[in-house]
Amino acid sequence: MQGTLDADGTVRLGGDARQRFYDSSGYGRPTGGDGLELAPVEAAHLLQRGDLDAVVADGKELDFRAFLARTGAVLAFVVYKDLRDRGFYLSPAGREAESANTDADAVADADATADFVVYPRGSGPWDDEVAYRVRVVGERESILVRTLGDVVLAIVDEDGELTYFETARETPGGTLDADPPAGLVGTLLADRVLVWEPPDALYEDHFYGQRLYGRNADAGPIQLSLVEAAHLARRGALTVVDGENGTGNGEVNDNGEVDGDGTGTADVNDAGDAGDAAVAVVARGRDVEGDRFDRRLRAYTAIRAAGGVPKSGFKFGADFRVYESFSTVSELSHSDSLVRVVPRGHAALPRDLSLDVRLAGGVRKRMVFALTDANGGVDWLSAARLTP
Amino acid sequence: MQGTLDADGTVRLGGDARQRFYDSSGYGRPTGGDGLELAPVEAAHLLQRGDLDAVVADGKELDFRAFLARTGAVLAFVVYKDLRDRGFYLSPAGREAESANTDADAVADADATADFVVYPRGSGPWDDEVAYRVRVVGERESILVRTLGDVVLAIVDEDGELTYFETARETPGGTLDADPPAGLVGTLLADRVLVWEPPDALYEDHFYGQRLYGRNADAGPIQLSLVEAAHLARRGALTVVDGENGTGNGEVNDNGEVDGDGTGTADVNDAGDAGDAAVAVVARGRDVEGDRFDRRLRAYTAIRAAGGVPKSGFKFGADFRVYESFSTVSELSHSDSLVRVVPRGHAALPRDLSLDVRLAGGVRKRMVFALTDANGGVDWLSAARLTP
Repeated sequence: MQGTLDADGTVRLGGDARQRFYDSSGYGRPTGGDGLELAPVEAAHLLQRGDLDAVVADGKELDFRAFLARTGAVLAFVVYKDLRDRGFYLSPAGREAESANTDADAVADADATADFVVYPRGSGPWDDEVAYRVRVVGERESILVRTLGDVVLAIVDEDGELTYFETARETPGGTLDADPPAGLVGTLLADRVLVWEPPDALYEDHFYGQRLYGRNADAGPIQLSLVEAAHLARRGALTVVDGENGTGNGEVNDNGEVDGDGTGTADVNDAGDAGDAAVAVVARGRDVEGDRFDRRLRAYTAIRAAGGVPKSGFKFGADFRVYESFSTVSELSHSDSLVRVVPRGHAALPRDLSLDVRLAGGVRKRMVFALTDANGGVDWLSAARLTP
Repeated sequence: MQGTLDADGTVRLGGDARQRFYDSSGYGRPTGGDGLELAPVEAAHLLQRGDLDAVVADGKELDFRAFLARTGAVLAFVVYKDLRDRGFYLSPAGREAESANTDADAVADADATADFVVYPRGSGPWDDEVAYRVRVVGERESILVRTLGDVVLAIVDEDGELTYFETARETPGGTLDADPPAGLVGTLLADRVLVWEPPDALYEDHFYGQRLYGRNADAGPIQLSLVEAAHLARRGALTVVDGENGTGNGEVNDNGEVDGDGTGTADVNDAGDAGDAAVAVVARGRDVEGDRFDRRLRAYTAIRAAGGVPKSGFKFGADFRVYESFSTVSELSHSDSLVRVVPRGHAALPRDLSLDVRLAGGVRKRMVFALTDANGGVDWLSAARLTP
């Protein structure tokens, strides 16, 4: 059997094509009678299998090789063939929306970012069920992260190998619902805050900070990160004296308190109130991290508000690792997710996404992206490897 | 005992300080007689332990807290204390160079990028042996990759937790020394080259490309990445016809060969020679990747020349994964390293370094950086987690 390549890029088949290819194996879209319309990738697959002999274009007969060179659909072919080999029937996205028995608007939205609709094994285009919506991406095309959540990415790398990532919308969660201790006083340093006499609960029960005297210390000063300190100050739980300015002025009083305002006296008033502290810590955060600090603080605050505990994700190259459940309240369990905070308009390179997802999978954590809006909102998405 | 903070930032001790602190536990530098000179981080550690009562500065007595706020040496203190807790003696880098019995120039070079010289357990500053040269880095300070190779990085993250990375110079290696097949003809597509009738050895014995018909295919066309194709073309082993231009012209002859030059005839001459092919493939590579393509091709070529097999590192978020040894020639073993190619002047954020090193460690591969020069040279460095 031969097909004909139309000017609109579809391949039309006549004869018993509908019965042979659609009814029995889910290729194409019936066009009334026995006619069948194929997307180029479907025609390419039938050509490669030998089920189609040729496609005629401009009076010439194209075989698989010539057809592929003509349509350039190599990435789509690689993905289509892989999913067929795995036992799925699939269609180009968008066809569904035209069918009468679906909610056309909703389907059109979902399909807008997908290339293929994949049916559950054993189902096909004549059913309503969808297993995956798949977007085909070349290794070098950047991906607008906010368009994820409903699609599976099928990324074809430069060697032609395939990696699938499923994406989902997330909501931060956790089981820690107590308020942290208040009345904390700290010294603001270049990129952290030292709390000299912390209540035990700050670290033991609420997981703020790290012992200055090392991991084995069970007492002594606590270092807070700037994001932890800003969060506590905004809650009214922390006031600070400015250790950096104090160093600059070089004045330290007999109690070892730093004179933060250069007046030559260091007293309780130097710590100001928590509102001042929040302003000072956030300003320091912006000094060392720029806008990124505000985005991270917003994500941090949302995770804490949901009962999760975010700690530095540095060892995993992420912004935060997040603990959501606690075997005992004084002992952190295995952290549940890694969070990368990005602006809402962030476009990720597939390679960077692959790095994040692979690492998270290797340590059995969810890879979560926090997308921060200009107006203060945060959207949450996760990505994970998938074997269809 | 008390010390005195001098204008040059060192702390001077008198009395029996040399015997108490240097001879018995490796603090400071003897200054003749019983005198001892301490770096601020050493004084901070002695203050924190209670071995020093105070340091006098400008007529005021500073305790640990005031001293730390005054000198701001929190990062250095965290690292110094951790290494002391692990049983090491260590000195600020640079002291060694001043001692008479060492090669001062060589030591000064090595110390230039380090903050601490760490002696083997049981040794101290009175010995010549060095276990590690350690550079203290805050999470937000970028690291000039080319300064690595001799130092251990001690990175203090925002929570105050420590991560150590050892770095080393590398040389690419491998055991594949045969020449690849020649006389290959391919079609140049948007971001890959298809070789329609490849000799088995291309893929089976030399590990070029990937089957177009999927991982389970044991025959059929091979997709080459642009970097593989450029390498083969430069060796004179591959010629190409331009599938993209052919598609643009829309002319395909009866043999399914694409007319690459728009003359209306597609014959063997269209494939041009391998020199033309190299130019065409490299130009396509630059179109899709910019300068990065040339850097990657240079690293690829060096790895192949050394007998290694570089394949896409996409699944690990790297440029290449490299196979160095082969259990049988037709079967790739576990790949040995991941390679990230960067310009020689590249400054890495510690978080990105952490991501790479953590991932590589998790999959039991070396993390290697290929630093490419403007003049064509490549330097190789590796980084790995270290528990001192």
